[in-house]
Amino acid sequence: MDSEKIRQLLESVREGKTTLEDALSRLKHLPYEDMHFAKVDHHRHIRQGIPEVVYASGKTIEQVVAISNAMYKRSGSFLITKAGKEIYDALGIKGAVFHASAGVISVGGTKKKSGNVLVLTAGTSDMPVAEEAAVTASFLGSKVSTVYDVGVAGLHRLLDNSGHMRRARVIVVVAGMEGALPSVVGGLTDKPIIAVPTSTGYGTSLGGLTALFAMLNSCVPGIAVMNIDNGFGAGCLAHKINSR
Amino acid sequence: MDSEKIRQLLESVREGKTTLEDALSRLKHLPYEDMHFAKVDHHRHIRQGIPEVVYASGKTIEQVVAISNAMYKRSGSFLITKAGKEIYDALGIKGAVFHASAGVISVGGTKKKSGNVLVLTAGTSDMPVAEEAAVTASFLGSKVSTVYDVGVAGLHRLLDNSGHMRRARVIVVVAGMEGALPSVVGGLTDKPIIAVPTSTGYGTSLGGLTALFAMLNSCVPGIAVMNIDNGFGAGCLAHKINSR
Amino acid sequence: MDSEKIRQLLESVREGKTTLEDALSRLKHLPYEDMHFAKVDHHRHIRQGIPEVVYASGKTIEQVVAISNAMYKRSGSFLITKAGKEIYDALGIKGAVFHASAGVISVGGTKKKSGNVLVLTAGTSDMPVAEEAAVTASFLGSKVSTVYDVGVAGLHRLLDNSGHMRRARVIVVVAGMEGALPSVVGGLTDKPIIAVPTSTGYGTSLGGLTALFAMLNSCVPGIAVMNIDNGFGAGCLAHKINSR
Amino acid sequence: MDSEKIRQLLESVREGKTTLEDALSRLKHLPYEDMHFAKVDHHRHIRQGIPEVVYASGKTIEQVVAISNAMYKRSGSFLITKAGKEIYDALGIKGAVFHASAGVISVGGTKKKSGNVLVLTAGTSDMPVAEEAAVTASFLGSKVSTVYDVGVAGLHRLLDNSGHMRRARVIVVVAGMEGALPSVVGGLTDKPIIAVPTSTGYGTSLGGLTALFAMLNSCVPGIAVMNIDNGFGAGCLAHKINSR
Amino acid sequence: MDSEKIRQLLESVREGKTTLEDALSRLKHLPYEDMHFAKVDHHRHIRQGIPEVVYASGKTIEQVVAISNAMYKRSGSFLITKAGKEIYDALGIKGAVFHASAGVISVGGTKKKSGNVLVLTAGTSDMPVAEEAAVTASFLGSKVSTVYDVGVAGLHRLLDNSGHMRRARVIVVVAGMEGALPSVVGGLTDKPIIAVPTSTGYGTSLGGLTALFAMLNSCVPGIAVMNIDNGFGAGCLAHKINSR
Amino acid sequence: MDSEKIRQLLESVREGKTTLEDALSRLKHLPYEDMHFAKVDHHRHIRQGIPEVVYASGKTIEQVVAISNAMYKRSGSFLITKAGKEIYDALGIKGAVFHASAGVISVGGTKKKSGNVLVLTAGTSDMPVAEEAAVTASFLGSKVSTVYDVGVAGLHRLLDNSGHMRRARVIVVVAGMEGALPSVVGGLTDKPIIAVPTSTGYGTSLGGLTALFAMLNSCVPGIAVMNIDNGFGAGCLAHKINSR
Amino acid sequence: MDSEKIRQLLESVREGKTTLEDALSRLKHLPYEDMHFAKVDHHRHIRQGIPEVVYASGKTIEQVVAISNAMYKRSGSFLITKAGKEIYDALGIKGAVFHASAGVISVGGTKKKSGNVLVLTAGTSDMPVAEEAAVTASFLGSKVSTVYDVGVAGLHRLLDNSGHMRRARVIVVVAGMEGALPSVVGGLTDKPIIAVPTSTGYGTSLGGLTALFAMLNSCVPGIAVMNIDNGFGAGCLAHKINSR
Amino acid sequence: MDSEKIRQLLESVREGKTTLEDALSRLKHLPYEDMHFAKVDHHRHIRQGIPEVVYASGKTIEQVVAISNAMYKRSGSFLITKAGKEIYDALGIKGAVFHASAGVISVGGTKKKSGNVLVLTAGTSDMPVAEEAAVTASFLGSKVSTVYDVGVAGLHRLLDNSGHMRRARVIVVVAGMEGALPSVVGGLTDKPIIAVPTSTGYGTSLGGLTALFAMLNSCVPGIAVMNIDNGFGAGCLAHKINSR
Repeated sequence: MDSEKIRQLLESVREGKTTLEDALSRLKHLPYEDMHFAKVDHHRHIRQGIPEVVYASGKTIEQVVAISNAMYKRSGSFLITKAGKEIYDALGIKGAVFHASAGVISVGGTKKKSGNVLVLTAGTSDMPVAEEAAVTASFLGSKVSTVYDVGVAGLHRLLDNSGHMRRARVIVVVAGMEGALPSVVGGLTDKPIIAVPTSTGYGTSLGGLTALFAMLNSCVPGIAVMNIDNGFGAGCLAHKINSR
Repeated sequence: MDSEKIRQLLESVREGKTTLEDALSRLKHLPYEDMHFAKVDHHRHIRQGIPEVVYASGKTIEQVVAISNAMYKRSGSFLITKAGKEIYDALGIKGAVFHASAGVISVGGTKKKSGNVLVLTAGTSDMPVAEEAAVTASFLGSKVSTVYDVGVAGLHRLLDNSGHMRRARVIVVVAGMEGALPSVVGGLTDKPIIAVPTSTGYGTSLGGLTALFAMLNSCVPGIAVMNIDNGFGAGCLAHKINSR
Repeated sequence: MDSEKIRQLLESVREGKTTLEDALSRLKHLPYEDMHFAKVDHHRHIRQGIPEVVYASGKTIEQVVAISNAMYKRSGSFLITKAGKEIYDALGIKGAVFHASAGVISVGGTKKKSGNVLVLTAGTSDMPVAEEAAVTASFLGSKVSTVYDVGVAGLHRLLDNSGHMRRARVIVVVAGMEGALPSVVGGLTDKPIIAVPTSTGYGTSLGGLTALFAMLNSCVPGIAVMNIDNGFGAGCLAHKINSR
Repeated sequence: MDSEKIRQLLESVREGKTTLEDALSRLKHLPYEDMHFAKVDHHRHIRQGIPEVVYASGKTIEQVVAISNAMYKRSGSFLITKAGKEIYDALGIKGAVFHASAGVISVGGTKKKSGNVLVLTAGTSDMPVAEEAAVTASFLGSKVSTVYDVGVAGLHRLLDNSGHMRRARVIVVVAGMEGALPSVVGGLTDKPIIAVPTSTGYGTSLGGLTALFAMLNSCVPGIAVMNIDNGFGAGCLAHKINSR
Repeated sequence: MDSEKIRQLLESVREGKTTLEDALSRLKHLPYEDMHFAKVDHHRHIRQGIPEVVYASGKTIEQVVAISNAMYKRSGSFLITKAGKEIYDALGIKGAVFHASAGVISVGGTKKKSGNVLVLTAGTSDMPVAEEAAVTASFLGSKVSTVYDVGVAGLHRLLDNSGHMRRARVIVVVAGMEGALPSVVGGLTDKPIIAVPTSTGYGTSLGGLTALFAMLNSCVPGIAVMNIDNGFGAGCLAHKINSR
Repeated sequence: MDSEKIRQLLESVREGKTTLEDALSRLKHLPYEDMHFAKVDHHRHIRQGIPEVVYASGKTIEQVVAISNAMYKRSGSFLITKAGKEIYDALGIKGAVFHASAGVISVGGTKKKSGNVLVLTAGTSDMPVAEEAAVTASFLGSKVSTVYDVGVAGLHRLLDNSGHMRRARVIVVVAGMEGALPSVVGGLTDKPIIAVPTSTGYGTSLGGLTALFAMLNSCVPGIAVMNIDNGFGAGCLAHKINSR
Repeated sequence: MDSEKIRQLLESVREGKTTLEDALSRLKHLPYEDMHFAKVDHHRHIRQGIPEVVYASGKTIEQVVAISNAMYKRSGSFLITKAGKEIYDALGIKGAVFHASAGVISVGGTKKKSGNVLVLTAGTSDMPVAEEAAVTASFLGSKVSTVYDVGVAGLHRLLDNSGHMRRARVIVVVAGMEGALPSVVGGLTDKPIIAVPTSTGYGTSLGGLTALFAMLNSCVPGIAVMNIDNGFGAGCLAHKINSR
Repeated sequence: MDSEKIRQLLESVREGKTTLEDALSRLKHLPYEDMHFAKVDHHRHIRQGIPEVVYASGKTIEQVVAISNAMYKRSGSFLITKAGKEIYDALGIKGAVFHASAGVISVGGTKKKSGNVLVLTAGTSDMPVAEEAAVTASFLGSKVSTVYDVGVAGLHRLLDNSGHMRRARVIVVVAGMEGALPSVVGGLTDKPIIAVPTSTGYGTSLGGLTALFAMLNSCVPGIAVMNIDNGFGAGCLAHKINSR
């Protein structure tokens, strides 16, 4: 970062105060692998608490497969998100699991699950995003339970599942259209709530912006909001809080 | 523009009961009064079921007073909306009532109230718009009851008022921020619901657009949505449905 | 959630007519059917006045068919909206009717029609949304008549149908582009008006937002506005008002 | 930049009637006056058919007065738009007229008026913009008549003025809120229509964007649309068409 | 809706020359043809100065063909806009011409061309919209010339065509991207200018909104702006002004 | 709405320990206090883990003071947010503290602080929102430390504070303009991050929307995003996670 | 349009060295070639410092090939941007190179490369836009180096490449999603930075608008921002600055 | 940043390999000054090539004065932008210059000016932003010339100043409304162009967004675009390029 520091380090090496290997290590070999089109960051898990993950959208299948293999060799454990079956077919890694409704491919992951993450959806159409969150949190080591189609138009369906809410340590609420479910859930529980707007709906649902803005304006304070359809991010945060 | 009236007029012409000039005049001069800067429409009540009303915003005090006096002379009964005290002070009409929190001035109005219109708000800040709706519906002849501050973050406050909902013929729901209340109310009742978004909130409340879009995307079908802060419109529609 | 029902239940518990477990069960298990991916709400009709309906968009064909069969077994009567022929073909329910231009599949519905709902469109391209409204209101039990292509550029076509307007109890106005028709209709009648913007148009029609905003800003007070292309919602509200 | 003028100039150079320096000067120094902060364009009238005009908004009073005096000395005739009384008071030019409701100051202008420009408004609140259009067209030499408050909610008020429409050569239609009036006028006449959206309204009127987009999407083809509140532009175009 | 015609009709009724039923019929049945899904307006040309035209987008081929045939039988002359070859192939009307790059089908049209309409484009990609304008104006009876690809990045290409500008009676300027061409053309001529934004561009061109807003904000006063890609509207207005 | 509480109540009814009326009352009258314009929810802390709070904006001073006194009498502990000095002056409650830069008034609060919440800002202008978060989390019982003005343009200022980040249990990152700080912080730590966009900036900062959208699109997964300027919500969530 | 050239021409006319017709022709016919649908501007390189280039999107293959051949005959050197393989296949020009990932076809170009342009990307998905910039700058004569996938979530990957930054004369930074990379790079270097937002991302990335707005609001002053996905523009500007 | 590196460094200190002072220096004392509410970055000039600057908007006068004094003591040279006279009056630093129309206060600055930066504006109202750019570039050491009010509606005013353009090394073009000037200038010169949109205009100028988007979509490639009204950024970039 600082050319002066590089100069001092080099001087220190010249004067024998720092070995060449030490200097190189300190300067350059923070652990990532350079594939030119991608710099795979093998220590992200340690640094950020999040595993290696490939966001497949916008990459060629060849790029996804090459990055995946680099990660596989290093740690044997990673996720591919927003992935289709054609990537799974091209991957050729034994033990890879394709979570079709979530659009996620997982390899490895934490065996021992603990804590309690609850994932709720307002409707059936919100399931793919919810599944992405559930697969992610589970991969990272959280116990996950799911309750789908408990939108605010039929409150009794939600109230019926109050036991689930009471047992959870953190609740992920996935909803499209008017995005009202996080507010109602938030009024019934003291657990941290992670709200994920989905692009479910038409017309003024504006591809999920309406649900997003509704969640950001919840009259229940302190709801954590994610990008539209970002189940992966919700799964990461849910696990971080769950594993505290 | 009613063909039955045209037919009667034509018959009357043929039978010599009406002169050509009279007929032409009646065909052309449907009753309004030309003040150059405004054409006061004295028969709107008959045609549209809505009384004479002056929308004060964007007009000079002099214009509002002149239009008001024209309406007063003709029917003795009208509303001024989005009005401040300075208009009330300038008006000089005996019997005018200034509904301060609603920003409405009423003169006359239907004495006999009937039916049952319920006006709910999510929060205290939504009261001015709710009052505008209540004053309007009452002016037109509806019985109106109001329940304020029953937002979705404390569902029990709403459920406690289920009796009010059961007794209403039509329910006006006023809410800002995430605009979730109409969906929750709509899940609990079979009464027609009129949703009014308010500009309450900040940041991504977008001056009420978020509440508006949330209401338009309600998972409860058939909710009637008004423009932001349009309590007057809600009062008109509520009365129309209530008086059916 | 009705306090009267709770009171009766409590009395029944006190009198020993109902066991504790039964009461708890009835308090908690209001009638819906859990299919994991969907919680079919068999009592929605009683609670909201709207029948069971499946919004097909965003669900797999398998999910739509499974939900449909659950509803069919329970009540024998339901709607599927935003549906294509491939769903109709997969459904396999005798007596199902596919309303192709409306994108609606109906099974059963109220036989006896009453009242009078008028559905108008500004143009020919607005017909699918209008048909969705008409099929819905008719399914619920309303008599429905339709007049298409009476946009404001040719006022005489609209004025010619003033008889239809006079006979209606409620009028649904469907329009895209500049969305001016509800204002003009609203100036000619005292009937409640339900305005449905459509995504007809290009460029600054903004997928229907322009028509929507125009309708929300109508100079005629009290027009009930729906989401873009939401004929189903319009049909529900029209029937609710018509059946008052 | 007219090739005919360049040819004549070149001929004149060849024939020795014009010196090299003169020709260069004439080619480069088309007539404007450099005041550093403004380059007053004295020949704009000849080139564009529009007189000298100062748009006061965003300029200091000193700048407006200085530019005005430069124009006054040169031609004795100009407009200042979006101007307040404080500019009029500072101007000190004899014969200047302050059109208060239009926010326009005029000096001079074409004495002889011809043709027939009709300016209509939907409501009373649209008058300032309409007055700006009327003052501009009149200044440029058009006969102008105005009819205010003939919005679509009371069609008979508009139909009553069909004589005005028939006599006009071009019609300026000024409307805020849902901006429907140009479509209705356009359905009744074959005259060129210039539509001016205004910022009248609240909530989803979006400061005039809703009226603007409605006008751009009119089902009547060929309506000329102006920027929001741009009465000056409408007056210019109306005069150009009127004086053809 | 012309009071003069009503007067004559009433006189004719009084004098017994017209029966009551005839008068009523004539008052009500202005000439259009009801096909249920469309009400073809055969007198629009007389009323609005614009011929019969079918906007094909959003209609089925069957509807377009049926409407076309109704118009063909009545007047033998009409346009279909936003049309593809599949409509042309299905039409089966002798003499129909398919203007492929414009997406317009014309049948008949005014033989004698007069006046002078100039259509300019900023780039090659703007040609389809320009062709739509040119075909429309020519169909209506205007002489039309076209100059393409004279955008502001190469001013000399535009200045070279100043002769065309000088000879035109009205100029249509078609541009996408930054939409600057109308301002530059407007600075060089006193002819009425009709600006048509196109959806040419990417990213922040926002599907033509950027060009549209730029044109509405032109520093040259009085430019008539159309909806994005609305060449047809531009052709109509150009002809109206040209034929004055 | 807790089934366990309902079960106990039902048992108590069966055993005759609770009368029918008492049970009904307790089922219905969960503890809130009805002041007509506000329904103060005294048990929110128990239910949602968040204390009583008054959002002052949009309420009259009289309303804020009345609600505050109701809360003061009941629990002696509450917050007022988005409050100015005029409310503090009118309050008249001993022990009330006015946090001027945060716009917060606190009364009481948790004495014993635990855990470790770190609040960072990108710039000096983001301080008021950061202070709102810090005051809220501290009031609820969290230890809070703050580091201001460590935006990404001077990374060394941020890296210098890595000790603070290592010691925190949860990090609140407050930033306006391009909103990049949460991504950079998120790349350096595995702690849960709560991002708060602020309305700092001009032009395309769009009142904070740009920072908000940037945070929602962070390449670091699992960042919890709040509404623009919503320091209070961030403080609530930070405390919830911190106190896990 | 250079007055010096006009002066020389005028002198030449006066001295009889140039005929009137020749002078007129040279004044008017600055070198471009009229193909009706395109006016190829052969002297753009001289005037703007940018070579001839065809923007393929929105043009037919035939048009692209015809324009390309005109340019090829004249200068033997040009670029086609936003091009696919079908254009390359149709081109038939020997020596044409198809840069597939950049979507660029180049013919000729400057052989001798000098200076030092560095192109960085935040992620792998941003590569096509980066390649477009790199190919363009190289074609124009700049030495170019590229470093990909150094987004802010892994700062060490970026810091590791500080040597590249130190050696560059100008840096192009390509990023989608939250668009934070230019701010971080700008905090580390004093070189001119050209920021290119990409449409990489989903939901609130808004097709690149979020990255664009973030870059425009950078807390690092003086960052040059391009349109979304506009690698070509970035390459042009980078070369202009690099070759200063 | 990396706890492991801190640990190693400390071990190295313990082992005598690194002195305490070295370690401290390397870890903590990058040169900035911590005032809690601001971390003044005294080495930004060295690192980014941009001087110390205070963005006054959103800071209290006390904060601006305190930061200014810290910078004054250290370097004796800095800028305050978006500043009013009340800050200048409170500053109390001898030699401070208040550039009123630019809203900039400068202290010190580079004495020796070199190179050639040209600042153009489309209109008089764009002057404040242009002055901000000019003052900034001059402060940094660039020779600056300004030409105002040369918008595209009067091309000859611009062409007249072609000498200025030819002599410049870089051109800053400031324009509001339709933002067309950079495209036209870019068509006439091969110099790098920096475009600054301003908030001049009304209605659909959208506070400068229209000009911004127009500039980003310029048909002239490689124009560097700044945030709305960001004259300071333009001055910084202009100086960076000018001083290459």
